[in-house]
Amino acid sequence: MRSVAIIGIGQTKIEEQWEKSIREIAVEAIYAALKDAGRESAESLFVGNMMSGIINSQNNLGPLVADWAGLKVPAVKVEAACGSGGAALRSALMAVSSGELDSALVVGVEKMTDRHPHEVTAALATAADADYEVEMGVSFVGLNALIMRRYMHEYGWKHADFAPFAINAHANAMHNPYARLHHKITVEDFEKSAMIATPVNLLDASPIGDGAAALYMVPADSVRDSTRVLIAGSSSATDTLALHDRSEPLFLNAAFKSVQEAYRQAEVGPDDIDVFELHDAFTIMSALSLEACGFADRGQGPRLGLDGNITPTGSIPVMTRGGLKARGHPVGATGVYQVVEVVQQLRGECGETQVPEARIGMAQNIGGSGATIVTHILKLG
Amino acid sequence: MRSVAIIGIGQTKIEEQWEKSIREIAVEAIYAALKDAGRESAESLFVGNMMSGIINSQNNLGPLVADWAGLKVPAVKVEAACGSGGAALRSALMAVSSGELDSALVVGVEKMTDRHPHEVTAALATAADADYEVEMGVSFVGLNALIMRRYMHEYGWKHADFAPFAINAHANAMHNPYARLHHKITVEDFEKSAMIATPVNLLDASPIGDGAAALYMVPADSVRDSTRVLIAGSSSATDTLALHDRSEPLFLNAAFKSVQEAYRQAEVGPDDIDVFELHDAFTIMSALSLEACGFADRGQGPRLGLDGNITPTGSIPVMTRGGLKARGHPVGATGVYQVVEVVQQLRGECGETQVPEARIGMAQNIGGSGATIVTHILKLG
Repeated sequence: MRSVAIIGIGQTKIEEQWEKSIREIAVEAIYAALKDAGRESAESLFVGNMMSGIINSQNNLGPLVADWAGLKVPAVKVEAACGSGGAALRSALMAVSSGELDSALVVGVEKMTDRHPHEVTAALATAADADYEVEMGVSFVGLNALIMRRYMHEYGWKHADFAPFAINAHANAMHNPYARLHHKITVEDFEKSAMIATPVNLLDASPIGDGAAALYMVPADSVRDSTRVLIAGSSSATDTLALHDRSEPLFLNAAFKSVQEAYRQAEVGPDDIDVFELHDAFTIMSALSLEACGFADRGQGPRLGLDGNITPTGSIPVMTRGGLKARGHPVGATGVYQVVEVVQQLRGECGETQVPEARIGMAQNIGGSGATIVTHILKLG
Repeated sequence: MRSVAIIGIGQTKIEEQWEKSIREIAVEAIYAALKDAGRESAESLFVGNMMSGIINSQNNLGPLVADWAGLKVPAVKVEAACGSGGAALRSALMAVSSGELDSALVVGVEKMTDRHPHEVTAALATAADADYEVEMGVSFVGLNALIMRRYMHEYGWKHADFAPFAINAHANAMHNPYARLHHKITVEDFEKSAMIATPVNLLDASPIGDGAAALYMVPADSVRDSTRVLIAGSSSATDTLALHDRSEPLFLNAAFKSVQEAYRQAEVGPDDIDVFELHDAFTIMSALSLEACGFADRGQGPRLGLDGNITPTGSIPVMTRGGLKARGHPVGATGVYQVVEVVQQLRGECGETQVPEARIGMAQNIGGSGATIVTHILKLG
């Protein structure tokens, strides 16, 4: 397999973009990535998207976006629920590393805010098991609430112990112009926010949004730039789709398998990771990801937040651009946003939330309540 | 890139499978492919599917199907409308040829018959441009009707001239136990069948259905069997999603680009193709595919049928197992069915519709009205 480098990134602000269609949002990010890469086209396009068929009455996004971008190239959509962006990136990576392609564009895009929230809630629930979970009345937030409730019970945490995850996200998003939310929050805000599905309240949960992120990849040996960003590790793994089928519902087994393989490929371990863009769709997911990836013992994820270790100057900086919580979570786009943000960190472009001397970064994208996990490790050099 | 071989195939009968869920249908085909390959698992699973999010309220099919099959392996869904099966196969091929995987399962699955036909019609229309085609009231059948009407006008064909495509499909399906339709038709039947969207009538159009097809691939050098089937060419291409944006709406430019690249990779031309499973979603698509792939001049596709050249003993046998028209068209599964059927031909397993001494076969899968085209060429040896 050939080594692959990312030479261009692009993203749109995440917001309610009612005046733009899904194709326009996708192409805005693509053009930014092309400009950043100094290229005019690529040999192929990979689109990460979860719910355009349901929400936008539009499948076949591959040719739609390729055409609108003025690229008459092979294009395909990859779907793995909220893990779609990371999965699309991996598909592109395989095609470039195989030698089939010498350049590839990846775009993650989602346009979610045109429809009534109950329709979006139903669309998000398609990430869970339709026959054995959703049929019983549980929503996607509800599944995360079940996990969080049990986790608090097993390990003795109270709700406020999860506040640092949300507070850190909001603080960092203040400095990210592409973030959906630009306001700081306190522990009091966190505790008083509206309940959604006990114990998950509004500030445990990430906001949806319309947005796209894109990146441009080429074989590493075609780039001699000392600031090139290499994809040093890439791995995906699956667990049962239904939460109740897991022997350990409080441990992200697929994250563990995925990250172990990514560490092996990149020849690094948790101590080597300078920045970690994790999938904080809900605060409980931050804790579980940190544990599965070896940054905390089981049940001890919240301790990292409480001890101040997750900020940009902490031992394991997470959500440095706002995370899903405050940058926003346009579901099928999120996995690409995460990698774009790691690239920004490795390039030293993050200003007030820059992680000092970041050379190795990781992004982990989750589809469903832990069913699909895609992990990427990037290295400068 | 490593050469890749297909060593196992499986499929379900296409019908109204109301008593089975989408996961059960997919796993039935997977188990058949595993048995055929003599394997118990694979390193990864690639699912081709178009509309489970809309029709089955289920996304994230990768982990769903992997879990139900008892395979705890990385899994992802690839979508390119009715070209999803071929696109999923190509994703798997990249991963195996890159060296990332030493084995991969591909399953194409669709379960369409649980919902009211008007919902299925709306779901099929997501293959077209939602904003500029469907918004104007055109259905997917309607788009094909526009193409067929114009084609008949430009080249002087009458409706009955397309009958041989449907007659050949139905005749061949009689000998395929997995086919949805098992009755022969005549020119009179063809001409008298119910009108859907002028000039497309019921016997121009392929029936939907519930079904799955699967295949198992490994690096070619790991198989020494003389009956191994190699993937000698694989290519995809795109055109505009919207029909009205094409400068030549009567020529499948993406099919031309895709097949030219596949011919180049396989070092063959049209004269070398012994069997061609084309994408006869509508009779007009058979004509256009034959022309784009070099088997007929522009506007002359129907001549091949009228002259008796498309039957299993003709110069270019197509739809040898019934095609989309009579085997059935479970949309996201179709591209995998086509390749499975080409493998059956190369292995000499097709009985009464066996193409004599078939050694090189081709499958072409189309998403949208020609927007995504995926072509595969298989060789024995």
